[in-house]
Amino acid sequence: MQLPAPEAVPWLLPALDLTGIFVFGLSGGLLAVRRHLDLFGAVVLALTAGLGGGIVRDLLLGDVPPVALRDIRYLVAGMTAGLVAFVAHHQLERIGRAVRVFDAAGLGLFAVAGAAKAVAFSMNALTAILIGVLTGTGGGALRDVLANEVPLVLRREIYAVAALAGAVVVVVGDLVGAPPAPVAIGGAVGTFVLRMVALRLGWHAPRATGPAD
Amino acid sequence: MQLPAPEAVPWLLPALDLTGIFVFGLSGGLLAVRRHLDLFGAVVLALTAGLGGGIVRDLLLGDVPPVALRDIRYLVAGMTAGLVAFVAHHQLERIGRAVRVFDAAGLGLFAVAGAAKAVAFSMNALTAILIGVLTGTGGGALRDVLANEVPLVLRREIYAVAALAGAVVVVVGDLVGAPPAPVAIGGAVGTFVLRMVALRLGWHAPRATGPAD
Amino acid sequence: MQLPAPEAVPWLLPALDLTGIFVFGLSGGLLAVRRHLDLFGAVVLALTAGLGGGIVRDLLLGDVPPVALRDIRYLVAGMTAGLVAFVAHHQLERIGRAVRVFDAAGLGLFAVAGAAKAVAFSMNALTAILIGVLTGTGGGALRDVLANEVPLVLRREIYAVAALAGAVVVVVGDLVGAPPAPVAIGGAVGTFVLRMVALRLGWHAPRATGPAD
Repeated sequence: MQLPAPEAVPWLLPALDLTGIFVFGLSGGLLAVRRHLDLFGAVVLALTAGLGGGIVRDLLLGDVPPVALRDIRYLVAGMTAGLVAFVAHHQLERIGRAVRVFDAAGLGLFAVAGAAKAVAFSMNALTAILIGVLTGTGGGALRDVLANEVPLVLRREIYAVAALAGAVVVVVGDLVGAPPAPVAIGGAVGTFVLRMVALRLGWHAPRATGPAD
Repeated sequence: MQLPAPEAVPWLLPALDLTGIFVFGLSGGLLAVRRHLDLFGAVVLALTAGLGGGIVRDLLLGDVPPVALRDIRYLVAGMTAGLVAFVAHHQLERIGRAVRVFDAAGLGLFAVAGAAKAVAFSMNALTAILIGVLTGTGGGALRDVLANEVPLVLRREIYAVAALAGAVVVVVGDLVGAPPAPVAIGGAVGTFVLRMVALRLGWHAPRATGPAD
Repeated sequence: MQLPAPEAVPWLLPALDLTGIFVFGLSGGLLAVRRHLDLFGAVVLALTAGLGGGIVRDLLLGDVPPVALRDIRYLVAGMTAGLVAFVAHHQLERIGRAVRVFDAAGLGLFAVAGAAKAVAFSMNALTAILIGVLTGTGGGALRDVLANEVPLVLRREIYAVAALAGAVVVVVGDLVGAPPAPVAIGGAVGTFVLRMVALRLGWHAPRATGPAD
């Protein structure tokens, strides 16, 4: 286990985490509404989507107990998102689409937060990128598995790849000594835009054809 | 990683764990019978439900390898529960109900065991409560996901909340210096009663209404 | 956390891991084809099946970040398997059968790799055997849960038991001081043969009969 390097920007990781928890939490709460779950189901799915990726990241980095269990703001952000989604979904015409938009925002924020924390823990570039991808995709995959949906990560071409792009931006930015905060914001926005364009244009990867049983 | 404080009651945690493993194991074995799985499916689901929560707890606390893999009594308790459920289900008229009763007992025992171990590892109050809730709900959620059921934690209002109540009792008891064993038993019974009353009275949280796609 | 003992055969674990990742990855990629997922779904399921068991093992042993995230060969082996499965499935008449054959090979390799790494980390015999079983069955279970299939570990009698046999061979071999490489190969082949014979002969465990609701 390596010691964390002193973080140059102490507010950056919590800010990425908390914003990511809130938007991922909205995606979880709205998915619960779409599946006709009750208020508590909305809060549980919001917490799963919002906190899952960061808990996976911290387990992989050996930073236990995970910060999501130590810092009450993390819990409050996730629960608030679940409540807001439950109450405010009337304002949303198409819930399925809203789930994917908030999911894309969370994907970018957590891919960047995962890679940035791995860099702060002195991981090598490959490890930091992979931890970014797993942090970005982990919470959404847990949400979808709990809600018995086919995970988004399996359904759409530009999903893990979009998370990869954001994580690479952070790791390359660190290697060239760029300032962390703009790099992180740029990476998160890049992931989000890439994912939304792919959704909008309906980009698909090839499907296999041939014998199947 | 913090050092565990010396435990005042060394038999308490294993007793909570082993009883919890057995009743959660019964819930897993009976669910396997209900899903028409074979004997080995019953043992696998019993081990998943019985050992899952404690393994999650120990990963979150950094106590690796988890005690469930180090202490042969844990494995024996889980396997025995699976075999008993497989053989004895004829005595049960309504298996679905029995799954939920044993699940409620395991929920209480593991919520308390999770919070108590976190307290023994010198976690703060919030972390200890959250680890209690995750320990209580983790094994059952893994069981339901493996068996392709919608997890109980998503379906019923008073589930994670009941686990929360038991974990809070343990943490508050520790803060005020109450004797650990009666506090733990009280917390587990409280969670169980709260959950069973909610089941019996059919308490539901509000469902969302409105546009859904 | 215990210190790893010096490994007598430094190439053995990576060789078991990488071969296991490739064959488990083939099973994941082919399952994706069978479920009509696209190319990226095939790569994601190949990585899940291929890397999942080893990541679970390393978390249980406290060896974080897991070697699958530190060593680029692990990622390359898993991605290659996904691509090969996607491109080459035309050569396979019965994909469902091929999934199970590659799964059986991965089961044996990872059961052995899990037990061998646990032995190298000075775990006791029981813990090493259980970590072997979880390493062997973990990746396949994650693959099946993500793809919304009933996990093989629940469906067939001789599955976890076959993994157990391979892990026991490694642990007993270590106890009697046998040379690690032949023991590991023997254990993996034994698990594979046991599993394939069970599949071929259609061995089933008894199913429960009686009242169910």
